[in-house]
Amino acid sequence: MNSLIVVAHPEANSFNRALALAAQQTLESHGNQVRFSDLHARGFAPDEHPRHYSRRKNHERFDALTEQRFSAEHDTLPQDVARECDDLMWAELLVLQFPLWWFGMPAILKGWMDRVFVYGKLYSGSRRFHSGVCRGKRAVLSVTAGASWEACAHDGQEGDTRLILWPINYSLHYLGFTVLEPLIITGVRDAFAGEDSCAHEQGLHAQLRRHAARFADLGAIPAIPFNVAQDWDERRKLKPGTEVHSPFIRHHADWRLG
Amino acid sequence: MNSLIVVAHPEANSFNRALALAAQQTLESHGNQVRFSDLHARGFAPDEHPRHYSRRKNHERFDALTEQRFSAEHDTLPQDVARECDDLMWAELLVLQFPLWWFGMPAILKGWMDRVFVYGKLYSGSRRFHSGVCRGKRAVLSVTAGASWEACAHDGQEGDTRLILWPINYSLHYLGFTVLEPLIITGVRDAFAGEDSCAHEQGLHAQLRRHAARFADLGAIPAIPFNVAQDWDERRKLKPGTEVHSPFIRHHADWRLG
Repeated sequence: MNSLIVVAHPEANSFNRALALAAQQTLESHGNQVRFSDLHARGFAPDEHPRHYSRRKNHERFDALTEQRFSAEHDTLPQDVARECDDLMWAELLVLQFPLWWFGMPAILKGWMDRVFVYGKLYSGSRRFHSGVCRGKRAVLSVTAGASWEACAHDGQEGDTRLILWPINYSLHYLGFTVLEPLIITGVRDAFAGEDSCAHEQGLHAQLRRHAARFADLGAIPAIPFNVAQDWDERRKLKPGTEVHSPFIRHHADWRLG
Repeated sequence: MNSLIVVAHPEANSFNRALALAAQQTLESHGNQVRFSDLHARGFAPDEHPRHYSRRKNHERFDALTEQRFSAEHDTLPQDVARECDDLMWAELLVLQFPLWWFGMPAILKGWMDRVFVYGKLYSGSRRFHSGVCRGKRAVLSVTAGASWEACAHDGQEGDTRLILWPINYSLHYLGFTVLEPLIITGVRDAFAGEDSCAHEQGLHAQLRRHAARFADLGAIPAIPFNVAQDWDERRKLKPGTEVHSPFIRHHADWRLG
């Protein structure tokens, strides 16, 4: 299996990078090919911007989707985007490793999505969701959160982290990926809360070992259920009586909506 | 009233910028002071990164929160961040104007949050939510979506746009803002779907006029209800029996969870 691990953390010795390397090691030790995209190390530019496009469809007015499609059709994608696209097309497993910042991805990873999920190459109006370019591939988010397990739970003040990741997982579903349940490690900043820092370090190491082990058996991680093509009418509304599969949950722990 | 409008769109003549300018015009015509932050025009760097910090607390290892707090305490915030912070502290109303990209903000705006919501200045463990620095201020998201109104509705295939904005609104709530219901304009790309482009243009102009009018009477826009401090126990879990106020909704249109 070919795997692409994308990591978004500004510190080369971060816990996030250690998690990404642990995943890589496990995958490789099981005979998989792994490519590694450390966005900060690569200096990936997060902002979609006219300066990235050497040839333009429209020089008067910059529309990202228009220029993405044009450059995909003419094989003039920005070089950094082309590289990431190639890795993405090559991969059968995509791992996004990042810390939760302001209830979402760090900007550099959001920018990776804004720029690398190229309109006209990775999706279009007719190639998305169940007819998406990435169908048959798997994707999984691996996320660290500073707050405690309790605060990140379904009834915690930080909001249910699994739920908060929904817009990201839905983006992956949009491309056609089979999306696995996210791997979430909470409480990574407990040392700042005055806890014994040595015990905290040991806890992180234990988390790292558990994390590595999960990549030995990805089949054990359930896929997130989504509604299928037949569930939607021609206006893209859910048909009456359809069971809802959505990562939005009620306030209790059941992740499906009634 | 002092207002800060932050706009995130790479095209200077975009509909998003027109919406931001329309809001500015209405606010100014009602005697308000407005500052305008066009992130692309400013070349705002979205990625939190060691290069932004001239003085470091820790030179060995970059931890964003540590360096944010240190630079806030020593008045050595990155210059671009200091400017945005000043505007944010000055403003009594914050408007974030952006197109919905991959079910979230463009990376440049996410980076604005990652960098400008400075730990140790705009929040800390003891100054957040109802004791947040920005309490008493109002914030509102103004968002365009390419997909149709139907697809962006509570039962649409794009997911309920109001819900998708929740992590962003919760970030504003985290700082203490009173968060108004988002202003959402859907179907801005209908021309691409083969619709009469002239009728589409006229439709956008009508939206622009309606948008401008809303800023004449912000009191008419309801505030999003959030749970109050007493609803949480010491582990930051919701107390039993507490009514839930959360922008997460069920699959039907009621935005409150049961």
